[in-house]
Amino acid sequence: MLRWLLICGLISALAGTASAGFLLSLDWVTRTREAHPWLILLLPLGGLLVGLLYHYFGQSVARGNNQLIEEIHRPRDVIPLRMVPLVLLGTLLTHLVGGSAGREGTAVQMGGALADQLTRWLPGPLRLRRRERPLLLIAGISAGFASVFGTPLAGAVFGLEVFLIGRLRYHALLPSLLAAYGADWVTRLWGVGHTHYYVPAVPTLSVAGVAVALLLGLLSGLTARGFVAAVHGWQGWFGRLMRWAPLRPVAGGALLLLLTWLLGLGPVPDVTRYLGLGVPTIVAAFEAPLPWYAFGLKLLLTSLTLGAGFKGGEVTPLFFIGAALGSALAVVLPLPVALLAGMGFVAVFSGAANTPLACTLMGLELFGLPAAPYLALACVVAYLSSGHGGIYGAQVVGEAKHPARRRDTGRRLGEL
Amino acid sequence: MLRWLLICGLISALAGTASAGFLLSLDWVTRTREAHPWLILLLPLGGLLVGLLYHYFGQSVARGNNQLIEEIHRPRDVIPLRMVPLVLLGTLLTHLVGGSAGREGTAVQMGGALADQLTRWLPGPLRLRRRERPLLLIAGISAGFASVFGTPLAGAVFGLEVFLIGRLRYHALLPSLLAAYGADWVTRLWGVGHTHYYVPAVPTLSVAGVAVALLLGLLSGLTARGFVAAVHGWQGWFGRLMRWAPLRPVAGGALLLLLTWLLGLGPVPDVTRYLGLGVPTIVAAFEAPLPWYAFGLKLLLTSLTLGAGFKGGEVTPLFFIGAALGSALAVVLPLPVALLAGMGFVAVFSGAANTPLACTLMGLELFGLPAAPYLALACVVAYLSSGHGGIYGAQVVGEAKHPARRRDTGRRLGEL
Repeated sequence: MLRWLLICGLISALAGTASAGFLLSLDWVTRTREAHPWLILLLPLGGLLVGLLYHYFGQSVARGNNQLIEEIHRPRDVIPLRMVPLVLLGTLLTHLVGGSAGREGTAVQMGGALADQLTRWLPGPLRLRRRERPLLLIAGISAGFASVFGTPLAGAVFGLEVFLIGRLRYHALLPSLLAAYGADWVTRLWGVGHTHYYVPAVPTLSVAGVAVALLLGLLSGLTARGFVAAVHGWQGWFGRLMRWAPLRPVAGGALLLLLTWLLGLGPVPDVTRYLGLGVPTIVAAFEAPLPWYAFGLKLLLTSLTLGAGFKGGEVTPLFFIGAALGSALAVVLPLPVALLAGMGFVAVFSGAANTPLACTLMGLELFGLPAAPYLALACVVAYLSSGHGGIYGAQVVGEAKHPARRRDTGRRLGEL
Repeated sequence: MLRWLLICGLISALAGTASAGFLLSLDWVTRTREAHPWLILLLPLGGLLVGLLYHYFGQSVARGNNQLIEEIHRPRDVIPLRMVPLVLLGTLLTHLVGGSAGREGTAVQMGGALADQLTRWLPGPLRLRRRERPLLLIAGISAGFASVFGTPLAGAVFGLEVFLIGRLRYHALLPSLLAAYGADWVTRLWGVGHTHYYVPAVPTLSVAGVAVALLLGLLSGLTARGFVAAVHGWQGWFGRLMRWAPLRPVAGGALLLLLTWLLGLGPVPDVTRYLGLGVPTIVAAFEAPLPWYAFGLKLLLTSLTLGAGFKGGEVTPLFFIGAALGSALAVVLPLPVALLAGMGFVAVFSGAANTPLACTLMGLELFGLPAAPYLALACVVAYLSSGHGGIYGAQVVGEAKHPARRRDTGRRLGEL
């Protein structure tokens, strides 16, 4: 017990500090790109750098989040420490030139890889037994997720939920919880804050409200499915087209640039709002309905960015896609726009990551308790309707979502 | 999907209405007893009635909550409908004469048994397949729990969490959630409200705060262990002493009466506050520190009441015991009394029922989001420190709490 307190303290300090530094530098990078819009002309060059970086130094850590999940299931080798600088640099480069990517992949990989180093470093009495390594990785993932989004409860459950579909194992309950709250606390100690999303009015639950939550959940699940298919589609296409991996993000960057330029010419004059993290646009989604095409456009740009090999993660773009979907539907659905945006925000992510409980908790932490029934219903339905697919191919089906797909049990999503 | 919406609608209406009726009549019964204190002289007579009721009519439903859990694990026979009137009548009799018992057992058994009747009643296209019956039972349990406490999110997770230790299965996620919110909504539609517990100030998390949460969690887990041992102790003692079951609550009632009289003479003049549900005393625990002996006294009276065969359930007394424990510790621990009472309230229950997530969510729903880190830590530590025991003997160890007890996996708590 005392041993784990100390270990979780160390994980908190490492992951929380890493997240704080990452968030500050990401913020600087994003402001730099916004101040110098010509930087997006460097998309192909940025792609080349990211590609070369991972080709020459990052082969052993290129599988990113999936690598962490695989090690939880079958612990073999300690995650190389180089995962930390590589994913950090790759993500900052991606965002500097305007790639449409996220940040949770970076935080989770930094947290997981840093936590895993303790396997080697800890002296005698603290030394970890072999079977405890998965707990360390789970705690590291929780710490990274919690501190990058400022949602510790969701972070704790995310670490427990992400490696297995349809089951939650409690073996790492206390380490995750301690590491998540600890890392979040450390990040705030460094003076780093998080975006506030404001859901001012939540109507009491009614039959119509339940129906809307179920419908938005279903649409979110299908959107998540579409996102996963699009990323895989781009990945496969670039893979077939270019055998030398570093060329893929170059071509992807060029295509992204071309697309941005064409769209900016006419149909979407403010297309640059869809690049990078897009946090201001997410905030706007809570205030007034976004155009109907916003979620699809972000889906296209993000799947292209990530499918080509840029770095950063999927989650913030998924928040964008979901919030834009919910926000656009406020024109036809009888719930306030902020609530719909909030429901989409967590539900699309829930469907894509197969983590309905973490997403519901995240919704509570970001949007407040009164929204709970809407958030929970949307997240659960999105999870059920996104199928046996997702953004993490190393996830294992612990229990099929539908009895008809029982034979998938025990297999990795990537094999299905 | 539509089929399950309809089924959950039916469960909501049945369980929500049953809970509303139960809460109203329980309220009437409690007020009657408070207005006529001589009613506690009838404790032995009330015990005889409860005993005879279950001996002659209730053999098939006497295992109560455990029977529901067993049917989830190994579906055999539909729960007899008579479970509903018997547990209702048994609970009202228990509370009328001042037995120290709860109410969640009643609500959960009514919800589960009513839901299970749908196995028989549903016409052709809605008819349930054999493997769907556990989902129905889980949804019924969630509906009962959610509506009796007014905490739907906790109710939904409680149904999923209660039958298996150390694992959460997602197969009934949507039915539980729908039934929990639906039943809570129906209960409120009937105009039935719930007690408000007020936690006004929550300090931001600090190292001292974490230490207090861990310590209170540990004490709560040990208290839960003591409670379970005490109930089993009384059960064994009455069982050995009296072979004819209906005599046991008579003797138990007489003993309870004697104890109340002796305590009331000198050491605890306000001993009647410890009888029945004790909600006013729970509320008082949030306002000022209770005496140090309060939690132990309630533990003694409740374990005696339930061990002798009275009905109602363990949860509200566990809330009392936990809130009293936390409240009393406010004299020495550096956190506000309301927060400590709230932490104990959910943590002792978490340790005794082995449901840390449901208890954390319940804490959020009752005491608000800012208390989340304290509640989560206390609930998780109480769960980890209560051992492989608990108030529901039919719970199966899905995953051992500690690697050292791995050989318990797959066995029922009652067998260990």
